Amino acid sequence: MSKTSPRPLRVTVWNENVHETTEPAIAARYPNGIHGAVADAIREHLPDAEVGTATQAEPEHGLSESVLARTDVLVWWGHIAHHLVEDEVVERVKQQVLAGMGLVVLHSGHLSKIFTSLLGTTCNLAWRSGHDRELVWTVDPTHPITRGVPSPIVIPQQEMYGEHFDIPAPDELVFISSFSGGEVFRSGCTFRRGHGRIFYFSPGDQDYPVYFHPDVRRVIANGAAWARQDAGERSLPQIRNRATGWFEEENR
Amino acid sequence: MSKTSPRPLRVTVWNENVHETTEPAIAARYPNGIHGAVADAIREHLPDAEVGTATQAEPEHGLSESVLARTDVLVWWGHIAHHLVEDEVVERVKQQVLAGMGLVVLHSGHLSKIFTSLLGTTCNLAWRSGHDRELVWTVDPTHPITRGVPSPIVIPQQEMYGEHFDIPAPDELVFISSFSGGEVFRSGCTFRRGHGRIFYFSPGDQDYPVYFHPDVRRVIANGAAWARQDAGERSLPQIRNRATGWFEEENR
Amino acid sequence: MSKTSPRPLRVTVWNENVHETTEPAIAARYPNGIHGAVADAIREHLPDAEVGTATQAEPEHGLSESVLARTDVLVWWGHIAHHLVEDEVVERVKQQVLAGMGLVVLHSGHLSKIFTSLLGTTCNLAWRSGHDRELVWTVDPTHPITRGVPSPIVIPQQEMYGEHFDIPAPDELVFISSFSGGEVFRSGCTFRRGHGRIFYFSPGDQDYPVYFHPDVRRVIANGAAWARQDAGERSLPQIRNRATGWFEEENR
Amino acid sequence: MSKTSPRPLRVTVWNENVHETTEPAIAARYPNGIHGAVADAIREHLPDAEVGTATQAEPEHGLSESVLARTDVLVWWGHIAHHLVEDEVVERVKQQVLAGMGLVVLHSGHLSKIFTSLLGTTCNLAWRSGHDRELVWTVDPTHPITRGVPSPIVIPQQEMYGEHFDIPAPDELVFISSFSGGEVFRSGCTFRRGHGRIFYFSPGDQDYPVYFHPDVRRVIANGAAWARQDAGERSLPQIRNRATGWFEEENR
Repeated sequence: MSKTSPRPLRVTVWNENVHETTEPAIAARYPNGIHGAVADAIREHLPDAEVGTATQAEPEHGLSESVLARTDVLVWWGHIAHHLVEDEVVERVKQQVLAGMGLVVLHSGHLSKIFTSLLGTTCNLAWRSGHDRELVWTVDPTHPITRGVPSPIVIPQQEMYGEHFDIPAPDELVFISSFSGGEVFRSGCTFRRGHGRIFYFSPGDQDYPVYFHPDVRRVIANGAAWARQDAGERSLPQIRNRATGWFEEENR
Repeated sequence: MSKTSPRPLRVTVWNENVHETTEPAIAARYPNGIHGAVADAIREHLPDAEVGTATQAEPEHGLSESVLARTDVLVWWGHIAHHLVEDEVVERVKQQVLAGMGLVVLHSGHLSKIFTSLLGTTCNLAWRSGHDRELVWTVDPTHPITRGVPSPIVIPQQEMYGEHFDIPAPDELVFISSFSGGEVFRSGCTFRRGHGRIFYFSPGDQDYPVYFHPDVRRVIANGAAWARQDAGERSLPQIRNRATGWFEEENR
Repeated sequence: MSKTSPRPLRVTVWNENVHETTEPAIAARYPNGIHGAVADAIREHLPDAEVGTATQAEPEHGLSESVLARTDVLVWWGHIAHHLVEDEVVERVKQQVLAGMGLVVLHSGHLSKIFTSLLGTTCNLAWRSGHDRELVWTVDPTHPITRGVPSPIVIPQQEMYGEHFDIPAPDELVFISSFSGGEVFRSGCTFRRGHGRIFYFSPGDQDYPVYFHPDVRRVIANGAAWARQDAGERSLPQIRNRATGWFEEENR
Repeated sequence: MSKTSPRPLRVTVWNENVHETTEPAIAARYPNGIHGAVADAIREHLPDAEVGTATQAEPEHGLSESVLARTDVLVWWGHIAHHLVEDEVVERVKQQVLAGMGLVVLHSGHLSKIFTSLLGTTCNLAWRSGHDRELVWTVDPTHPITRGVPSPIVIPQQEMYGEHFDIPAPDELVFISSFSGGEVFRSGCTFRRGHGRIFYFSPGDQDYPVYFHPDVRRVIANGAAWARQDAGERSLPQIRNRATGWFEEENR
């Protein structure tokens, strides 16, 4: 296991960028867009990383084959325009994740085509935009994504996301949130799919300045670092017809 | 938890039924079709169950809304005609599984649209039609699906299915197979998706009489019984907007 | 899989029974002891079950070999007298669980010798006796233990148990609780160990009448039904020296 | 998440060292002891690591508080002398693992006091010293422990370890082995317990030169690197009495 990766982590932060370009209050909250705030968070904590951004309005949503080929980890933010993401681009991203590209899905990305397609369930949940205080509790203190943040993380105001969250049981349950209204939510979850690693993290919303919260920023950066695979060339899992004893040949 | 379900288990065994209707050797091996053999296996071990069958050539592939509505557990067999299954029917089945219908996927069904859509991965694997002996070992002896079968189950001749099997880590790993060529395979896996339970079981093939093997028949019946949900009415997980304190109202 | 077990479920509810015999307020709250309230809960929901009780003051703590041999599921409640439970009895119970006896551990039983010995971790947690409201949310709606109870279960007053709860990641996470102080807790967890099934459920305390709460009573009964194994004779997993091809002999 | 740990990994390889000191054939096979071969394997693949050894004959079995305090990851090999390991030392090691020290348990260590105490089950299995060929297949290609080794690893001669292996379901199942006699075994498993990470890897035996196999050596080194925690100071999970709103104070 190589602990020293040969080159810097390359992250692409994708954002639908609709709220920020159509609603002045949100534009004021996130003057560089949510993607800008999230990209800065990763740069802050992973200064060696090469962090780019892409948005829905760009050709191919900014996610051409060549962009994905030089992306180790893709961060995804979407909310009101999931249905406007081209199926062809979604399929392209999915193939890359299954081939080993890391994926960090944030907040309302739970209903994105890429997330529901990779998980297979509705990913539905309960919600309330009611200025709840969110507390994010660590339940897996051995996980590297939890490094450097307190338990709980205290987010003074946030949208409520509550159970039942219709996801497959996560491979690792890292964080559980409570809200001042009493709800709970599995707010930090990892999934392995194909050769790729996926981290879902729910805190963060267009209506609250959560992506400027220092602990939330740290978790997102941790998640991006964790989702990277050091397995060399990416490759999609293949179907293979194998002769008897093929492995003896390959090991000779 | 009601151990005594109010009515008999209702199973529908679905089969593409292409090999049996186009290849005489396979028709001779499975004179009532693979669906016929599998349905008989379930009737043999669950005599109270109501077991029907459906095939691809029927209108709507025999899987109309009304058929699914009266199906507790759907068993799926397909191989060379996955691409001919209508997307609309696949989506209909998927909604029912997420709403609580059980699903048992057999052997080459690993590449069916319904299975890959629910799991989100390629479900690719290694294979060889080389008359391997398959041994099916129990690794979760507490699981009800293992009741009444030896460990290992010895299948004298069978197609080899080997790792890497590109599935999400199963919620429960029940069986692991070895093959005389040396390969291993996670041959019995459970997954919960939405409100539904899924059991994948790999032994069985059109080229071998595996669906007449007494232990394989027992496992399939056990799987059908396990996949049934006793949760009352089926319902798809919903997205819900919740007012603060909504649960106090509901509990009053 | 036999859905119709040949004989009634036999449950033994064990209680240290110290609070109730030394503190008048608690004796008034639980006039038949916590074991009496819990046993009644199981009888109420599983009328066919044969439910007995045992307490620490009895010879061998009421858990002789013969009592355990006729117990399908043992329910455990202890708090201030964990250290007074004889190691020999703990080891006897552990052997039975690993051989297939079900175990339901309630509330402060998280620090009992039997629970920490089976799980291997400290099972430490955060707590507060502060009259918190506890909400118990279902996160695995496919699980039979959740049948018949609302999500959330509302417990008006209860001791707080909070994360980090130092347990192995549960095989199934069934319930997550929140408390009015903001804490969260994995309050319903299953574990398989050896041939046995374990359910941990945290709601319930000597200082609150939680074991009379109708939903809590239902969950405990569901847990007792779930923890039962229908695998026939109990047997401890064995170490076995196997000749090459031993399974061919056994299957002949 | 710090990818660049501030100091070299410190590994202690522990061996009961009984076979090598009492049986000439085994001494000839492992002239520096099994601990010597394993330590060299780690040094070979992790040249920056500081690798020491300890054996049972040393005072306190070479595992004093001060040795453990400067050990990031402990590797354990034992077979015929498990019962001679002092309970006090086992408890000391267990506390360190729960506080965050990594643990790699090899082969016959499955029956060691430290492993069974941390896992809580019998850890029994089936075995045969019959010169089986072992094939070690990767089933989690996203796991860093699999880096740099083929699937399968081919071990020409090895003791057979077969299912049922009585362990809790592992947190991650990394490798599954088959043997020429047809058995299968979950040969690479991870477990998180307390603040520590545990890797169990079964290939390797005193009767075969498996610890000189290049792929086996690589896996052991990968496992040692993976088991390290970068969480700062080690600390045992604590029981804590928490006032309402304590976290607001801590975050001020």
